[in-house]
Amino acid sequence: MSALIEKRTDSTGNAELKKRIAPDILRIEEEMRSDLSSLSGQLDALLLEVLHYGLFNGGKRFRPLLAVLAARLSGKADEDVFRMAIAFEYLHVATLFHDDVIDGAETRRGKPAVCRAYGTAAAILAGDFLHARSMAIIGEMGGVEALKIFSRATSGMVDGEFLQLRNAANFNQAEQDYFAVVTGKTVLLIAATTEIGSLYGGGNDSNRQALRNYGTNLGCAFQIIDDLLDYLGDQKNTGKVVGNDLVEGKMTLPLILAMQRAGQKDRDFLTRILQRPDTRRKCFRDVVDMIDKYDGFTDSRSKAEELVKEAESELEIFQLSEQRKDRTVLEGLARYVLARNK
Amino acid sequence: MSALIEKRTDSTGNAELKKRIAPDILRIEEEMRSDLSSLSGQLDALLLEVLHYGLFNGGKRFRPLLAVLAARLSGKADEDVFRMAIAFEYLHVATLFHDDVIDGAETRRGKPAVCRAYGTAAAILAGDFLHARSMAIIGEMGGVEALKIFSRATSGMVDGEFLQLRNAANFNQAEQDYFAVVTGKTVLLIAATTEIGSLYGGGNDSNRQALRNYGTNLGCAFQIIDDLLDYLGDQKNTGKVVGNDLVEGKMTLPLILAMQRAGQKDRDFLTRILQRPDTRRKCFRDVVDMIDKYDGFTDSRSKAEELVKEAESELEIFQLSEQRKDRTVLEGLARYVLARNK
Repeated sequence: MSALIEKRTDSTGNAELKKRIAPDILRIEEEMRSDLSSLSGQLDALLLEVLHYGLFNGGKRFRPLLAVLAARLSGKADEDVFRMAIAFEYLHVATLFHDDVIDGAETRRGKPAVCRAYGTAAAILAGDFLHARSMAIIGEMGGVEALKIFSRATSGMVDGEFLQLRNAANFNQAEQDYFAVVTGKTVLLIAATTEIGSLYGGGNDSNRQALRNYGTNLGCAFQIIDDLLDYLGDQKNTGKVVGNDLVEGKMTLPLILAMQRAGQKDRDFLTRILQRPDTRRKCFRDVVDMIDKYDGFTDSRSKAEELVKEAESELEIFQLSEQRKDRTVLEGLARYVLARNK
Repeated sequence: MSALIEKRTDSTGNAELKKRIAPDILRIEEEMRSDLSSLSGQLDALLLEVLHYGLFNGGKRFRPLLAVLAARLSGKADEDVFRMAIAFEYLHVATLFHDDVIDGAETRRGKPAVCRAYGTAAAILAGDFLHARSMAIIGEMGGVEALKIFSRATSGMVDGEFLQLRNAANFNQAEQDYFAVVTGKTVLLIAATTEIGSLYGGGNDSNRQALRNYGTNLGCAFQIIDDLLDYLGDQKNTGKVVGNDLVEGKMTLPLILAMQRAGQKDRDFLTRILQRPDTRRKCFRDVVDMIDKYDGFTDSRSKAEELVKEAESELEIFQLSEQRKDRTVLEGLARYVLARNK
């Protein structure tokens, strides 16, 4: 099964991709640092410390990178694009601060979560600060239309979380329940990132639509792989213990598929485990075997592969020679989503 | 001492003010209801329920009313002003949701706080939703410039909360420490409300500046009276037990003044109480007497009166006969801040 999460692209491909995106990643991090520097003196020192702690934490800068690439592919390659791009990282990190409070998380990327290191109040407030700043930057750099797309994504994220809260005790979900939650939690922001990137870059309607669709498919594949890693990942790579979703009773695609397909006896077995939170950790390996028996992992993986293919096909309209480089990177990122093991 | 918080304007004045603002308050509430209605179907039912619960809770709608009045005084009296105005209530309520989580509050306006009625996750997320929606509305109705003022206020609010966290164990504060916290927590949003109102209403630079200054002075006076009520208020009117600020070790103006002015013996007495959280509730009456001894209450009250006078004087530039009505209401609201007992 671990083959399901092993690197599928050859490692040369990944190394090449990393090399290509490195300068942009560097510029994104520089932009965040210079933004925080511009605030020192104006902002409370403790707030700045919390922001530094939470923002510079080994994040992949996946979202701002997508914004930069979408803008460039749509025609504009100025330096201000990096300022616009950091808004997406800010919003993402704001939601992580709040999620960690909500989930009572201990760690984030191997370090104590902000709510542990600085307390609940600091985590909520610093999240609010990043949220406000992200919207201000989007308004400033992308205007009212960009802001509208952005805030639709934010509202959708909250809505997705509520849906998840409400679905918490429902162990018989359909695939569309899963995709509704995923759309709110992950997809809308990634789709907004590529769409606003395109808008900023001066893309026409079909550019914008194509890049939005790319983001939608990519975001969905990204979340499926994330959920697979929660069952099959290697803590050495992910920095996370496997099985957290099961322990929290979170119904993700592999388990939903298994529950749908299992015969009465196996379904009763799974339901008993889900109904008793204290048994979940202990029975993790049994659940993994059961999901595997009903192809929950392989079919989730296939779904992610399908979505990545759709994401790539959305890029076909970008045929100009000057678009080749950025298109290749976006294609590479889509394939990386399938290859990632952390 | 209770005279300090008794109604200073004659009750006819207040009744007249209430009658004048009633139609606007009604329109503001209608606009909020119609906004939430427009979301039903799109939003999770539980999220909508939380929003209804938290928004329709006997709020005075002070902030949106100020926005409407500032817009009208600056020249525009259309119906869309109410849509713009509700953003200020949304942001205010978003901060209440989060504050109640941070403070572990049990109740808000006599009902269980959102975090008690629906849980921490719901309170954080619904706050995030209102925050996002408020910024989207401001961007849509007021454009990028309004958004900039608005998000400066939001950032300042977070900054003020951090300052308060950091000052928590400092019992020897200066007046300016108090005003720095108050500016972040209350004043910036009220000043943004009247300034954005004026901007929306097409006010010129001096209109905008005057209305911003009005908001600054009013907000400051408002907070001072709020802090006085925490010592001297009557629970029958305020719905709150007195003494919470002292119990939480919060240094507000009356206590700061007393600490500054007290002789060594009295200061040591107050410090001992502040240093031992378990003694604070028990010693509340002693602290009240001590603050009174050093004129902490009367001088705080005088400061608020001075600020209200300054707020009123900012309105003097609005001399046109068609401005008289709204100007009179804004003057009445400023005086009401001094007269309020809840």
